[in-house]
Amino acid sequence: MEKKFIGIDLGGTNIKAGVVSDVGKLIAKASVATGSGPDQVVERMIQAARQAVRDGNLEMRDIEAVGIASPGPLSSADGIVLRSANLPGWHNVPLRDLVGKALNRPAFLENDAKSAAYGEFTAGAGADETITNFILLTLGTGVGGGIIYHGRLIRGVSDSAAEIGHMIVEPDGDVCGCGQRGCLELYASASRTGKYAQHLLAIAPSRASSLRSLLAAGSTIDAREVVEHAKMGDELANEVWDRACRFLALACVNAARWLDPQMLALAGGMAAAGDFLLNRVKHHFARLNWKMSETQMQIVLATLGNDAGVIGAAALARDAEHQR
Amino acid sequence: MEKKFIGIDLGGTNIKAGVVSDVGKLIAKASVATGSGPDQVVERMIQAARQAVRDGNLEMRDIEAVGIASPGPLSSADGIVLRSANLPGWHNVPLRDLVGKALNRPAFLENDAKSAAYGEFTAGAGADETITNFILLTLGTGVGGGIIYHGRLIRGVSDSAAEIGHMIVEPDGDVCGCGQRGCLELYASASRTGKYAQHLLAIAPSRASSLRSLLAAGSTIDAREVVEHAKMGDELANEVWDRACRFLALACVNAARWLDPQMLALAGGMAAAGDFLLNRVKHHFARLNWKMSETQMQIVLATLGNDAGVIGAAALARDAEHQR
Repeated sequence: MEKKFIGIDLGGTNIKAGVVSDVGKLIAKASVATGSGPDQVVERMIQAARQAVRDGNLEMRDIEAVGIASPGPLSSADGIVLRSANLPGWHNVPLRDLVGKALNRPAFLENDAKSAAYGEFTAGAGADETITNFILLTLGTGVGGGIIYHGRLIRGVSDSAAEIGHMIVEPDGDVCGCGQRGCLELYASASRTGKYAQHLLAIAPSRASSLRSLLAAGSTIDAREVVEHAKMGDELANEVWDRACRFLALACVNAARWLDPQMLALAGGMAAAGDFLLNRVKHHFARLNWKMSETQMQIVLATLGNDAGVIGAAALARDAEHQR
Repeated sequence: MEKKFIGIDLGGTNIKAGVVSDVGKLIAKASVATGSGPDQVVERMIQAARQAVRDGNLEMRDIEAVGIASPGPLSSADGIVLRSANLPGWHNVPLRDLVGKALNRPAFLENDAKSAAYGEFTAGAGADETITNFILLTLGTGVGGGIIYHGRLIRGVSDSAAEIGHMIVEPDGDVCGCGQRGCLELYASASRTGKYAQHLLAIAPSRASSLRSLLAAGSTIDAREVVEHAKMGDELANEVWDRACRFLALACVNAARWLDPQMLALAGGMAAAGDFLLNRVKHHFARLNWKMSETQMQIVLATLGNDAGVIGAAALARDAEHQR
């Protein structure tokens, strides 16, 4: 029988678990609310994993190993979540062993954005076997990412490679929560894109924009509304969207300069804009990129949506298990 | 007898060749003027290689393989120099096979900055065996570099990874010869550092600076003069040097975010400033770098000087030969 793996994606709101085949196909999945505190969260992770196994008409003995995608910082080698902005009160939690023991299966821990990158690389946008060097850029509340080189995930010496949201893109830019100035995620995350629209509306009260009606109705503005109104022709919304895409294109140029990969895929909430994101980023990329030689890196949309973390965590467990 | 390799570093002005031991020790070296046109240049490369072998009291049969470090763009896999700004008239020159056949030895071709990075990694600043992830930043007329991850050189799919001089560090910055705006090498190369000093002198004719005497004497100003005068307390020279070091520190922050390596070494003409470069870059790095978690990347000075390319090319030939 084909080998099967569990992937668990631990988010701030929900825990997703899935049973994934040896070739990265999602067989069954389950989702539960995250809860709070390590004890409850681990219990819920186990619950979600068992639910997915049942929903797949399987038993736990059919599962070879378990991969866990978690917010960081964490130590993948030690299986420990050091702390997390999204999981208050977590401090040096040995998540890998807690989950592995409860399920009585070998378990592996990886950062959520890196897991998603590995998922897209093995079973999504980068699944073609000619792709060996791949970068994922996830555009959500923050901006994250993962790098695969020669088919292997680049972790870095302290598990903090591919912190793409914290590339400095404006030397004297705004101050980021991380302590740097001018980080990419201040200019190109879903939340910041919405905030920039609100900023433009506030500083020019007489400027016409269909986005004003949202504020008047008491709503906040996120990237989704910016996209919606930009598509309908609102000039201010278009200016905001264009700026975000320009900064993303700049990050893509720098990705090509650092690593010269075959493919860079865009994922996360903002990628729901589809071609409205992709074409705009590609437009600015062509404009900003060097003219010395052709850049082989394709820029594409990710294909796995919210399942990338689950599928990637399962694939990492599979590959780690095969290497033991 | 210990195995020996030849490294040849093809520069715009000189060709350096060396005999290098299996562990990266330079046994003998020779240098000749580069000449012009592929035929003459290849002849001179052979001449330099033979001279180094003779100077080492060896014969060509003692040499296992030959590594060639060349300006690019080039294809390492095909052994072809596609063209070169430093070698006028070169177009798709099969340099690897031309040199390999003339010396009757297996030959390997790599970009000069990547070769230097591999040299520093294997036998210089990064030689400690605990170092597996390493970045070299070469600061000369331009800015170049190389990345080693898991002990292997990162080439990229079109041999153009680690084009660190062409990272965009100022989104609306000056136009670079490559067609981009705001490339690192416009702000942190030796030549541009000198040019920025001349710019400051020109725009503020009444500003006092000891650098003015150089211009009055008909000299141009390069990074070397900037360093010299900054060390003597000249305020304008200090401002210029500080700006270059600030941009280098920003590149170091981004290097840590992309790849989280153990070490980043500074090499090339500007590294002759020693601690005056290193301490200033480290100062700005500490200031600009995130505060979320400690960054393990050490910033150091390279140790092999002008021999890095020769030693690195020889080491690449050694490792390629071992993998065959």
